[in-house]
Amino acid sequence: MEEYDVVVLGGSAAGLTAAITVRRFNPDKKILIIRREDNVLIPCGIPYIFGTVGSPEKNLVPDAVLGKNNIELLIGEAIKINRENKTVETDKGDTVKYDKLIIATGSDPMVPPIKGAEKENIYTVKKDDKYLASLLLEVDRSRDMIIIGGGFIGMEFADECKKNRDLNVSVIEMLPHCLMLVFDEDFCKQGEELIKGRGVNLITNERVEEITGDSRVDGVRLSSGKTVKADLLLIGIGVKPNIGIAEDSGIVINEKGSIKVDRYMKTNDENIFACGDCCEKISFFNKKPVNLMLASIATNEARIAGANLYETNRSNEGAIGTYSTVIGDTALARSGMSISGAKDSGYDIIVGMAEGPNCHPGSMPGSSNLKVSLIFEKGTGIIIGGQLIGAKSGGELINLISGCIYKKMTADDIATFQMGTHPALTASPVAYQMSNAAEMAVKELRL
Amino acid sequence: MEEYDVVVLGGSAAGLTAAITVRRFNPDKKILIIRREDNVLIPCGIPYIFGTVGSPEKNLVPDAVLGKNNIELLIGEAIKINRENKTVETDKGDTVKYDKLIIATGSDPMVPPIKGAEKENIYTVKKDDKYLASLLLEVDRSRDMIIIGGGFIGMEFADECKKNRDLNVSVIEMLPHCLMLVFDEDFCKQGEELIKGRGVNLITNERVEEITGDSRVDGVRLSSGKTVKADLLLIGIGVKPNIGIAEDSGIVINEKGSIKVDRYMKTNDENIFACGDCCEKISFFNKKPVNLMLASIATNEARIAGANLYETNRSNEGAIGTYSTVIGDTALARSGMSISGAKDSGYDIIVGMAEGPNCHPGSMPGSSNLKVSLIFEKGTGIIIGGQLIGAKSGGELINLISGCIYKKMTADDIATFQMGTHPALTASPVAYQMSNAAEMAVKELRL
Repeated sequence: MEEYDVVVLGGSAAGLTAAITVRRFNPDKKILIIRREDNVLIPCGIPYIFGTVGSPEKNLVPDAVLGKNNIELLIGEAIKINRENKTVETDKGDTVKYDKLIIATGSDPMVPPIKGAEKENIYTVKKDDKYLASLLLEVDRSRDMIIIGGGFIGMEFADECKKNRDLNVSVIEMLPHCLMLVFDEDFCKQGEELIKGRGVNLITNERVEEITGDSRVDGVRLSSGKTVKADLLLIGIGVKPNIGIAEDSGIVINEKGSIKVDRYMKTNDENIFACGDCCEKISFFNKKPVNLMLASIATNEARIAGANLYETNRSNEGAIGTYSTVIGDTALARSGMSISGAKDSGYDIIVGMAEGPNCHPGSMPGSSNLKVSLIFEKGTGIIIGGQLIGAKSGGELINLISGCIYKKMTADDIATFQMGTHPALTASPVAYQMSNAAEMAVKELRL
Repeated sequence: MEEYDVVVLGGSAAGLTAAITVRRFNPDKKILIIRREDNVLIPCGIPYIFGTVGSPEKNLVPDAVLGKNNIELLIGEAIKINRENKTVETDKGDTVKYDKLIIATGSDPMVPPIKGAEKENIYTVKKDDKYLASLLLEVDRSRDMIIIGGGFIGMEFADECKKNRDLNVSVIEMLPHCLMLVFDEDFCKQGEELIKGRGVNLITNERVEEITGDSRVDGVRLSSGKTVKADLLLIGIGVKPNIGIAEDSGIVINEKGSIKVDRYMKTNDENIFACGDCCEKISFFNKKPVNLMLASIATNEARIAGANLYETNRSNEGAIGTYSTVIGDTALARSGMSISGAKDSGYDIIVGMAEGPNCHPGSMPGSSNLKVSLIFEKGTGIIIGGQLIGAKSGGELINLISGCIYKKMTADDIATFQMGTHPALTASPVAYQMSNAAEMAVKELRL
């Protein structure tokens, strides 16, 4: 039986980053990743397979990174952890011994308990290249596609599946607006207009009561009684943590169904850590468990877990909740709390907003509009959230907002610390959205 | 004689932002800007007049912002401050009374004491639309242009003047590399390759000894004895603060020739504040005076000065030194200290570097390379600088680095706080340059 210093279960964003992190700080340890997939998909890239990128093979994490970091690989699904012997067994009959174990088993798509969900030509967003290649074939030959779920994944799939195809795409969302778990209403509405502008049919405030058809899907019946036809259906309503193997071995699971970890990413077994979608997330703000699964949270947790195996070096301050998407050529991003989320949590808030071209003068070629909205706590003036819509440079700007939230910067701090500006890269220093959104909030705080 | 609550001398980035800031927090004050220019140019946009933007008129700050903020305007050059009577006189014979005065008189181009500098067809980078319109005419009809000075301005002018023109452009820099006051050597070299790739002739390590020609420039003689021909010469070696009117009225000037201010941007006269290029800059790091003039520093100081006139609300933590430029389609940016600057100041440092596509997978259309280098203090692990080269999204990313420096984040902080990633907007979460550059530094700090 092969013995390893460190065994990592799972080879996607969390598992891979954890293994690389262990290697980074431990040049001499023997490290193994056990994963069920022959090829690992870039998780956030999955919707782009269906338009911009073109195929699952073009959206793979290259395994070369394993060799480069001297990380061994065993293909197989881990089915049993024996904590007493410190071994892991796979479905292929392999057994390996570990000194330290990192569980990064990720998540699988949720399927809602809808009547007819067992019919043919109904897909979920499985992180499996062969499965997605088959979905791609169906997208190419279908006429009417329905996507259940108007979150980031649903919107990205809708946008991509419309590209270069004569395909009717309808998104069905049960909340009053798409993207409503991420953005406040005005940003949701702008996002909806963008996706409608791409030719996508949006149906909000409707629940799918039944998926119809004989053996194969031919449409859905909605809560209003309305029907929508479809020859292809994709369910993108979220994911659930893969915790079976952990639970079976007596690892503690929290009330949300995720592997319980402490702030050092350690489970109740001192030799077993967890990170990524399978493990508990806590809020940056109140340190309570939250439902947030993002690859960028997974990799942060992996960098924490991977650094703590032999010595406690890093602690998890919690998920800020920083994410971005693109509809057409427009970026939408959020960090921290939304206005509605902050109010629901009892915060008394001030919002500052600034909007303008992302180049200066605005007549610069390639200039786009960029709107930034920042949310501050009244009294302290500390930033607790931000949202933006517009230029693609917003994909990096949202991380500036995330950094400001992480370091609890005040509106005055943001209005007065020096940010660089350049005609071809940003708004002018007089009109820079970050500074001015903060100023708008300070004004309200002062007057 | 007209009486105002607040008079601002200067209407460019600093003066305008100061006046808007005063208005923001003082709805009822009577505010006047006195400026010498009929039209105010966007200062950082000036090089772009000569290529991308096309004319001075397309690079103006719209005066509509004055009306919108109920700020009055008086055209004329302020020539005298009478501090006893609290009045300002202009060259047009106007005299106005102030309660609070903000000096934002900016800077003018430096002309080096070179033999022949008085000849015809020699230009500087004057912030004057008519003067620049005349330079634009000369650029259009010249064959051989020499730019003295290989800093940001020189490189930007060279790149722009080459666009859509059959013009030979040579940049002459006396230091061993262009951009050397901003970047470390490897970044300078990459910048030089980029500008050479645009067809610009670079001459480094050479001083201009004489500008030759009869009445009109026909070339230069260099320190090596070599000559370079030219029918147009532009001097872009920097600017000097406009302090004449302040000095004449007894306002204290510092050893670098800038108006002395305290951390609240107040001069030695309690009713007179200053901001922008005309006033003293201090370093964020050691709070000592530094030579750094940027529009983004000017506007920050303006937001501090404008908020402090009637009540001390904000203090200046000093200039971090965050700036960016573009050569061709490549962004170059820096924040905080360079490696050489940090070493010269006695810091013991660790540098972390990460490079990769700014989209994921790298095959995404529009993907470019982005290299990020972060500089940390050994021992504390606190970030003190960063440099980047590559994708234009770096223009916002440099401000994240600036924020990290401002809040004294450690390499561990940067490696583990959550930053959002998206296929079309950033590197993958596994390879995100900020996190990985920090990790590379942590590795060196730990091992």
